[in-house]
Amino acid sequence: MLTEKNIGILGGGQLGKMLCEAALPWHLNIHVLDKDQNMSAAPYCTSFSSGNFKKYEDVMNFGKGMDILTIEIEHVNIDALFDLQRLGVEVRPRPEALVKIVDKGLQKQFYQENDIPTATFRLYEDKAAILKALDEGEISLPFVQKTRTEGYDGRGVQVIRDSADVGNIVDVPSVIEELVDLEKEVAVMAARNASGQIESFEPVEMQFKEGANLLDVLICPARIDRSQHDKMLEIGEKIIRALDIVGVLAIEFFLSKEGKIYVNEIAPRPHNSGHHTIENNQVSQFEQHLRAILDFPLIKPKDHSPAVMINVLGEEGYIGRPFIEGSRNLLKTEGAYFHWYGKAETKPYRKMGHITFLAEDIDHGLKAAKEIRQSLKIITKTPT
Amino acid sequence: MLTEKNIGILGGGQLGKMLCEAALPWHLNIHVLDKDQNMSAAPYCTSFSSGNFKKYEDVMNFGKGMDILTIEIEHVNIDALFDLQRLGVEVRPRPEALVKIVDKGLQKQFYQENDIPTATFRLYEDKAAILKALDEGEISLPFVQKTRTEGYDGRGVQVIRDSADVGNIVDVPSVIEELVDLEKEVAVMAARNASGQIESFEPVEMQFKEGANLLDVLICPARIDRSQHDKMLEIGEKIIRALDIVGVLAIEFFLSKEGKIYVNEIAPRPHNSGHHTIENNQVSQFEQHLRAILDFPLIKPKDHSPAVMINVLGEEGYIGRPFIEGSRNLLKTEGAYFHWYGKAETKPYRKMGHITFLAEDIDHGLKAAKEIRQSLKIITKTPT
Repeated sequence: MLTEKNIGILGGGQLGKMLCEAALPWHLNIHVLDKDQNMSAAPYCTSFSSGNFKKYEDVMNFGKGMDILTIEIEHVNIDALFDLQRLGVEVRPRPEALVKIVDKGLQKQFYQENDIPTATFRLYEDKAAILKALDEGEISLPFVQKTRTEGYDGRGVQVIRDSADVGNIVDVPSVIEELVDLEKEVAVMAARNASGQIESFEPVEMQFKEGANLLDVLICPARIDRSQHDKMLEIGEKIIRALDIVGVLAIEFFLSKEGKIYVNEIAPRPHNSGHHTIENNQVSQFEQHLRAILDFPLIKPKDHSPAVMINVLGEEGYIGRPFIEGSRNLLKTEGAYFHWYGKAETKPYRKMGHITFLAEDIDHGLKAAKEIRQSLKIITKTPT
Repeated sequence: MLTEKNIGILGGGQLGKMLCEAALPWHLNIHVLDKDQNMSAAPYCTSFSSGNFKKYEDVMNFGKGMDILTIEIEHVNIDALFDLQRLGVEVRPRPEALVKIVDKGLQKQFYQENDIPTATFRLYEDKAAILKALDEGEISLPFVQKTRTEGYDGRGVQVIRDSADVGNIVDVPSVIEELVDLEKEVAVMAARNASGQIESFEPVEMQFKEGANLLDVLICPARIDRSQHDKMLEIGEKIIRALDIVGVLAIEFFLSKEGKIYVNEIAPRPHNSGHHTIENNQVSQFEQHLRAILDFPLIKPKDHSPAVMINVLGEEGYIGRPFIEGSRNLLKTEGAYFHWYGKAETKPYRKMGHITFLAEDIDHGLKAAKEIRQSLKIITKTPT
């Protein structure tokens, strides 16, 4: 075998499943910790352990048996990761990096300290402090409130546009950030192995679903100019090196209408913005992550063709056992790659799968994606 | 889900494993019957059943719980398949087709009856009958002896060149075939779904290992002329239709020095000659097989680039727990895709894995394959 090491993953959702998929050709020993056997990764890992990756004891018990421990979600018990690292388990990414990422306040301070461009911000302890700052003119409308912890997939982020929105301010420790006049959002996936080799994927464009804060359409490659492209890659590599991350790191950027680049946030794991790499790149983000944590040579990413990716979300108005309506049209579309996460229950806007479209150009990809989106619905057999 | 049908596979070797791999993105219910949990497919199927696919009871017990039953090897208990078909299980490919394929005598007669070009042959009951025919000038040296049953992967096929070889003639019912003056061997993979849609992959060239009768190098696309190409696709489609096969069918051709085309043999399942399609085609042979047996629309195969594939065989002189020597060079080679079958034991010439090389042209692919072959060895840690 390439390695007999036991690799543990905290989290068995779709990202964990796709890590198992990447490990399959190599027949690696992959062990997954998550809630129950219904999780997406469960059928495809070498062993599945039921437990809560936010609980110290569960992470310790699971992690002790591993040579390498990695994550598919950053909101795990970090204290356990520190202790496992002391016991000799190779925790990748390092818990020191996770500490700086899971608290968006510390994340912003890290950017500031390292001269990494990011939207202007201030930190506040609670709603009262935010209101006081607003009264005193320290901050002004409009602005963005990001809860410092537990933010994920757009949760914990809201725009406070005018005085009518002020009532919505959440009463938690927060980052208050200037609202960037957005041209587009762009993401870069960087990878770094334990020996320090770094490789980056091409920047991709992310269009978000109005209101839902969920990735709507991903476009590869991003339609940006060469200097923006190079700058983003450079920033991504600077961050992954500064945080001493081993594994992949998704860096989400704002590109303002004036062409300025800001780091929005980062995720130290495979990410929704890299799903198209499974079919579209000579190395997928998932294989690259495995290579990085195993300290194997990284592969220089190279796209096969332009690509478009859409998430397949649970339809509004349906909760329960999922049923796919309109799959025939999808199945006969050439160059459309359907991934179904096998979740037991659909609910509105839940990520149930994704589809990658490889196309001769982006417009054809967008057209195919639009057509499939009109015919494909994730519902239940009896509406709720 | 795309389907909640239970799909059973007889056989859990590498072909079964790669069918599981193809089923993973769709999260299908795949059940595998084979010897034990060490089989390649075991970690990646929905459920694994221990049993012998050559035993009537084992196939019946396993098959009864399935909606669709397929194979990764044709040497299974066909009586059970007939009975399961009567019970309403969709057996794909049909047992009627398997009967005509597993007996090479019947297979040759099928070609004859359907005007499919194949090397001239005669059938004999045993060694005495072959010797008698040779004495009487009914057949002449050199010729090829193929055992009628249990031939697989080159086993059961031998060339009888001269009188010194005559002693090697095996005493079993046999096909005695003229020895074709071979220019090259070419394979075509055809697929047909239950609705009758047929799609074929591009012909590939197969170079065999001298003596071992094992595929040495696969080259995609085959370097043949357009009329040969079209003729082979036409023959493949004629066979798959005539045998009423649902699933994929590998058709192996001889191309003689005079440019004549002969069907050598066929395999009604995914095949070694289609492994490169995993990375190199917009649909893999494994996904195409699943589409066919589920009666989903087939995808028109389209290669991304030229490709070369080599099998990774157990090194001579080593039997035991496998160890991969020289993997570092392989892992850093761009465009090289390594598949390891996870077999518990290596032995000389055993298929332990394969590597597909995508390249700008065939020569670059062959060069990369040659380099890797020189550095990569499957051995055991202690020589035997």
